[in-house]
Amino acid sequence: MKLINGGVTAAQGFLASGVYAGIKKKRKDMALVYSTVPAAQAGTFTTNVVKAAPVKWDIIITQESEYVQAVVLNSGVANACTGVEGDQNNEKMAQAVAEALKITVNAVYTASTGVIGKQLPIDVIIEGAKLLAGELTEGSEAGTNAAQAIMTTDTYSKECAVSFVIDGKEVKLGGMAKGSGMIHPNMATMLGVVTTDLAISKELLQEALSADVKKSFNMISVDRDTSTNDSLLLLANGLAGNKAITEKNENYESFCKALNIVTTDLAKKMAADGEGATKLFEMQVIGAETEEEAVILSKSIITSSLVKTAIFGNDANWGRILCAMGYAGVNFDPDHVDLYIESPDGKLKLVENGMATDYSEEIATSILSGKEVKATADLKAGKASATAWGCDLSYDYVKINADYRS
Amino acid sequence: MKLINGGVTAAQGFLASGVYAGIKKKRKDMALVYSTVPAAQAGTFTTNVVKAAPVKWDIIITQESEYVQAVVLNSGVANACTGVEGDQNNEKMAQAVAEALKITVNAVYTASTGVIGKQLPIDVIIEGAKLLAGELTEGSEAGTNAAQAIMTTDTYSKECAVSFVIDGKEVKLGGMAKGSGMIHPNMATMLGVVTTDLAISKELLQEALSADVKKSFNMISVDRDTSTNDSLLLLANGLAGNKAITEKNENYESFCKALNIVTTDLAKKMAADGEGATKLFEMQVIGAETEEEAVILSKSIITSSLVKTAIFGNDANWGRILCAMGYAGVNFDPDHVDLYIESPDGKLKLVENGMATDYSEEIATSILSGKEVKATADLKAGKASATAWGCDLSYDYVKINADYRS
Repeated sequence: MKLINGGVTAAQGFLASGVYAGIKKKRKDMALVYSTVPAAQAGTFTTNVVKAAPVKWDIIITQESEYVQAVVLNSGVANACTGVEGDQNNEKMAQAVAEALKITVNAVYTASTGVIGKQLPIDVIIEGAKLLAGELTEGSEAGTNAAQAIMTTDTYSKECAVSFVIDGKEVKLGGMAKGSGMIHPNMATMLGVVTTDLAISKELLQEALSADVKKSFNMISVDRDTSTNDSLLLLANGLAGNKAITEKNENYESFCKALNIVTTDLAKKMAADGEGATKLFEMQVIGAETEEEAVILSKSIITSSLVKTAIFGNDANWGRILCAMGYAGVNFDPDHVDLYIESPDGKLKLVENGMATDYSEEIATSILSGKEVKATADLKAGKASATAWGCDLSYDYVKINADYRS
Repeated sequence: MKLINGGVTAAQGFLASGVYAGIKKKRKDMALVYSTVPAAQAGTFTTNVVKAAPVKWDIIITQESEYVQAVVLNSGVANACTGVEGDQNNEKMAQAVAEALKITVNAVYTASTGVIGKQLPIDVIIEGAKLLAGELTEGSEAGTNAAQAIMTTDTYSKECAVSFVIDGKEVKLGGMAKGSGMIHPNMATMLGVVTTDLAISKELLQEALSADVKKSFNMISVDRDTSTNDSLLLLANGLAGNKAITEKNENYESFCKALNIVTTDLAKKMAADGEGATKLFEMQVIGAETEEEAVILSKSIITSSLVKTAIFGNDANWGRILCAMGYAGVNFDPDHVDLYIESPDGKLKLVENGMATDYSEEIATSILSGKEVKATADLKAGKASATAWGCDLSYDYVKINADYRS
């Protein structure tokens, strides 16, 4: 298993493009990912009751289509809360891509991100779809173009790829994602596309993806707001030439491991690049009685506004971490909790058995000043653990969101 | 039923004081409320697993003491996560007040607010207790002194009082509270004391209080962080001379109504004065199938960081309200939702059946620019409703909390 250069075009037979169609001002705003051969598909989607038009479309494609061959994405307009007209526009977007690529419309996934409540500028979208088809290219530059075109308030594009060996064949798996705000995924991220040339059954592909998001995208949060558009799409076209995986054997485990490397990397990049974020905050809870409890506790901490502002201020205000654990809805003994913080610069025990140690505030501030801060809470009650990723809450989060639409 | 001047000293036989003891820098930091005769007591407390020493003490006093005669409160140090030493210091605080007032220690409620994880400066506290006892006074000025002494990042003190008639006797009921940050009460507020000269059984007093907080303090949120110290204490000393209320009759209903006026007023003041807040945001959900669903939906909206920043920016970004309803965990039909905003300046329908109306952004911004903004979501599914109160999320929330301890 090794990290390689690239994203959605890393795997064999996947082409991509990213263009400026005219939805946003002057920035790329449409992306296309295309497989030269039919690919098995899997998807996980927002649990929000209010679902965007592309999410409703993709849920049906995931369940009912025999295969998928393209994913078209736009940024700038979310196509959520847009009624029947929104559904029609979404289908027109898929249809435009299908015609340009000469494939069936049921082989096209769609995804949108941006402002809620506005209709897609459908003429612009249809022209954009033609542009995208004409610009499809192999190679990492094409993947990066696509990753850039789905950004909204993201400050950098997010890609990751790995290669691994199955049946003596080299398999590649890579993806792209965008995040930034309204990020508290519940079944998926804002928008993510992962491609692989692995041969695997559709059923196992979906099972692997559903299991994976619980440990990757569902463990991050920027602002506790679960979007209306969260979609994570996974395409496997089989061009690596391995014997198709149809059972949960060693090869399946290798694939799951590769998938988790890519999804965790993308998820962490999304947390680190949360709106206004100045640093990535990783919270590990260990010594819990059950993994479920560790998940709830770690997520409660990374979503606390008071914890997030303290991290922004490089302030070792550990009481807020214990407070956030206390109201998470999990029973534990606060008088047994140990708490550590660490960064590449060092590690420090702040709390032992629920009370402050005699730690140096100066060293604590120095550790918290890093670009990546990790904290570990040990409940000393069992053997289960979980890790969640968030970011700090800064002035810029308020600035960005007080006036997002203008 | 009429609003009257005053707070905890409005009712007969209640004295108060607020002094600078030396816990904080230069600001009043200890308060005392005293009833000249034994009073029936009731209390509701934080549901946080991590409970401050005074909360643990008060829970026992509420259940086991025959009566209560004093409440001592300090700001600056929360006495939470302080272990056995914290419990001992809390008892010493109660003991110092009991000795100064010549009452039993079991008749003394305690409350603390401030930084978590620090021990009380117990010598300062004991001297402060003597000071407080010496300064006990009748009248509204004394009540205001007490209300000021429990403030932390509050920008103004919070008091309210009403008078009403039971059995031909005038009964008074008044209270004080402090809030500001770590405000997402779950059974009570950060700190609140309500006093009345009504005669009522201890059982009904508790029942009334427990029912009341569900509609008042538990319906507000500043930052979704449920404190370790939330305590709401209610004392009834019977000096109004009415026949003691021992059953749920008309008189009980009058009392509940008076209590709700005072607690809702204090709760709204707390939301409006949330850390960094520039305005009060009232969210009403109507037309729900059950009250529980309306409660969950309204609280989900007022706690959304994206809604709160939009309110700060006077931006009618209604998609964020529908999004926050969508992830609340309640099933409803988004395509039936109507949404209105209003302020004393006017009322505007933003959404009809889940889609934008043709509203004027200019008028919307003007309405949202008020100091009190109200929004109403109509699900058109039933007859249940609920109202929650929050505030906007501003730069100052980040500023205050990035460096609270210094």
